[in-house]
Amino acid sequence: MSDARVTEAEVVQTVRRLAVPGPRGGVAVGIGDDCAVLQPEPGRQLVATTDLLLEDVHFRRRWAEPADIGWKALAVNLSDVASMGGRPRWALVGLAVPGSSTLEEVEAFFEGAQALAGEHRVALIGGDTSSSPSGWFVNVTLLGDLERAPSLRSGARAGDVIAVTGTLGRSIAGLSLLEHEAEITGPALDPGVLADLTAAHLRPWPRVREGQWLGGAGGVTAMMDLSDGLATDLRRLAEESRVGASVSLGRLPVDAPTRRMAEALGRDPLVWATSGGEDYELLLTCAVDAFERLRSGLAQALGTPLTAIGEVTSAAQGLRFLDGDGRLVAVRGGYEHFGGTHTDG
Amino acid sequence: MSDARVTEAEVVQTVRRLAVPGPRGGVAVGIGDDCAVLQPEPGRQLVATTDLLLEDVHFRRRWAEPADIGWKALAVNLSDVASMGGRPRWALVGLAVPGSSTLEEVEAFFEGAQALAGEHRVALIGGDTSSSPSGWFVNVTLLGDLERAPSLRSGARAGDVIAVTGTLGRSIAGLSLLEHEAEITGPALDPGVLADLTAAHLRPWPRVREGQWLGGAGGVTAMMDLSDGLATDLRRLAEESRVGASVSLGRLPVDAPTRRMAEALGRDPLVWATSGGEDYELLLTCAVDAFERLRSGLAQALGTPLTAIGEVTSAAQGLRFLDGDGRLVAVRGGYEHFGGTHTDG
Repeated sequence: MSDARVTEAEVVQTVRRLAVPGPRGGVAVGIGDDCAVLQPEPGRQLVATTDLLLEDVHFRRRWAEPADIGWKALAVNLSDVASMGGRPRWALVGLAVPGSSTLEEVEAFFEGAQALAGEHRVALIGGDTSSSPSGWFVNVTLLGDLERAPSLRSGARAGDVIAVTGTLGRSIAGLSLLEHEAEITGPALDPGVLADLTAAHLRPWPRVREGQWLGGAGGVTAMMDLSDGLATDLRRLAEESRVGASVSLGRLPVDAPTRRMAEALGRDPLVWATSGGEDYELLLTCAVDAFERLRSGLAQALGTPLTAIGEVTSAAQGLRFLDGDGRLVAVRGGYEHFGGTHTDG
Repeated sequence: MSDARVTEAEVVQTVRRLAVPGPRGGVAVGIGDDCAVLQPEPGRQLVATTDLLLEDVHFRRRWAEPADIGWKALAVNLSDVASMGGRPRWALVGLAVPGSSTLEEVEAFFEGAQALAGEHRVALIGGDTSSSPSGWFVNVTLLGDLERAPSLRSGARAGDVIAVTGTLGRSIAGLSLLEHEAEITGPALDPGVLADLTAAHLRPWPRVREGQWLGGAGGVTAMMDLSDGLATDLRRLAEESRVGASVSLGRLPVDAPTRRMAEALGRDPLVWATSGGEDYELLLTCAVDAFERLRSGLAQALGTPLTAIGEVTSAAQGLRFLDGDGRLVAVRGGYEHFGGTHTDG
C-alpha cells in the first residue's frame, strides 16, 4: 500500500476535524462511534447510522443472491443500532445496480431487506435507485430511538471485564466454506450445519434484542459491534476509551462447526475468531461484579451466551492477546476497508 | 432498452409495495415523495431523504473535482428537504473511492460537502467509507425538522397555477459549456458569466430558504424540486396529484447566458429548460389568487423570482406543453436513471 493512499482511520480523522456541528447543535454523539446520537429536542434521542456494501469489496455476486445482499445491508446497520442499545425504526436505502439487472433481481434485493426489517419492525421509508457502471452498490441508513444513555465505545475502564455475545469466526467459516467447498476433506458435515455456516456469512443475524437488553440492564461500560474482527474492533474500543486490553485466546467462544471447518481447511480457528470479521456479535466491557448478572440475565432473557474473554488494562499496556500459558501472541489486525484484505489464515 | 431491464418507476412501485410500515408506525409520508416524513412522537415531525451520486452516471471526474462532488452530493439532498418546506439539520455520508485515491482528494470531498453544510447549519454526524473497485460512489442521507404540514407532490388541484423558482436550463448549459467549450463560436462571453454557468452544474445552490418560506407562507398546494427536468418531474407531480398539467413554453424562465450558450452550440434552450435536469429549482402549484402574494413575497423576502408557467388541468388532459400559439409541442421526458441518457437537444 502506497503511503499516498488513504486509510479508514485517516478518513475518520478528516471527517471528525471537518464535521464540527454548527451552532444549531442537537448532536450528542457525532462521527466515530457505531451510531450518531441526535437530540432533536431536550429529552428526546435518536440514533442514526449509515453503511456501504459494495460488490467485490463487501460481497461477491458469485455467492450472494440479491436477497442476501438486501438482508446483509440492513443487518450491518441494525447491528450498529444494537451496539448503542437503540431500537431501530426507519431505514433508507440507496441502491445502484448494473443496467443489465432485472426487476426480479431488484425485487429480490428489497424482499431480502424487508424480511429482516420485518423481524425488527423497521419501516423502509425512503430510497434512491440508479444504474451503476460496474456492480452492485448499496447504502443503507438506519434511524432508531434511544430511551437511555447510549452504550459508547469510550466508557471502558481499567479492570473491567471484556465480553462478547455468541461465538466468533462463524462468518469467515461460512465464507471459507463457500470459497473452498470442493477442497474439504475428512468426515462429511451435516448439511444443516453447513447451511447455518454459510447463512452466518450471507445473512448475519444482528444482536438487536441483545443490544437493547444489555443497554437497559445497567453495568455495561462500553459496547460496539464486531464488524471488522475482534483485533481491529477491540483496538478501536480501547483507543476511544484510552485504555489497553488483554484477551485470553483460550477463552474465545468458537463453536464446533467453525472449528471443524478450520480443521478441514487447515486454518487456525483462533485467527478466524480474532481477525475474520463480519460476525456482528456485540463486544462489551463491564465492571467485574456486573458480569455474572449480565451473563445469566442475557441467557435467561434471550438465550444468548455472553463470554468473558479478557480484561481492560491501562493504555500503557496496549492491546495484548495471550495464549493458554499467558504468552503474548501476535494477532493480525483484522479487516481495513482501505487497501486491506481479509486475513483468513 | 430491453424490456427485461428495470426502470426507476418500477423500482419505486416495488419498494412501495414491499415497504409497508410495520405496526410501530411513526411514518406520515413514506416512499415516493422528495422526503419521508417521520413522527417519532405525536406533534413532532422529521424529514429524511437519501440520494446516490455515481461517477459516470451523475458526474464525470473530468470536470467535477472532489470538492464539487461533495458539494453536489449535499446539495441534491438539501434540495429534497427544501421541497418539503423542511429545515435541514443532520447529514450522513457514505463514500467509496478507488484505492488509488489520496487523502487530499477525500479531504477535498468533505471540505466541499462541509462548505455547503455550513451555509445551511447542517452538521455532518456520521458516515461510512470504503475503497471502490471502480470510480467514486457517494450516498448522502439528510435529516431535518419540519414544523408544519409538509408540501407534498400530491396536493395539486385542477385550476391551480404551476410555478417555478429561479430559471431553468442553467445546469445543462453549464454542462454543455464544460463538454463543448472548444466548439463555441461567436462573440466571447464574459468569463464571470461562464463561471456562473459551470457552477450551476457543478455546485448547484439548493433553494432551502425558499422552500421554508414557501412552505410557511400558505397557499402552496404541492411542491417538489426539479432534479430530472421539468417534463419528468411535472409528470411525477401530476401523477401523484392525479391531475393533468398544461405548460406554456413561452413562459419558462430561461436566463440570457443560458440562451446565449444554447445559441452558440446550436441547441434549443426550451429543450434544455424542459428536459435538461439538475436545476434544483422548486416546482410548485398554488391557487390562482395566492400566486401574486407568493411571487411578490418571495421576491421581497429572498430576492428569488417565482414564475407562473402553466396551470393544473384534469387528469384526462394529461401533460401538455404549448407553444406561443397554443399548439401542442412534443417534449421528451427528461432524465431517467435507469437506461436513460441526458436529453440535451
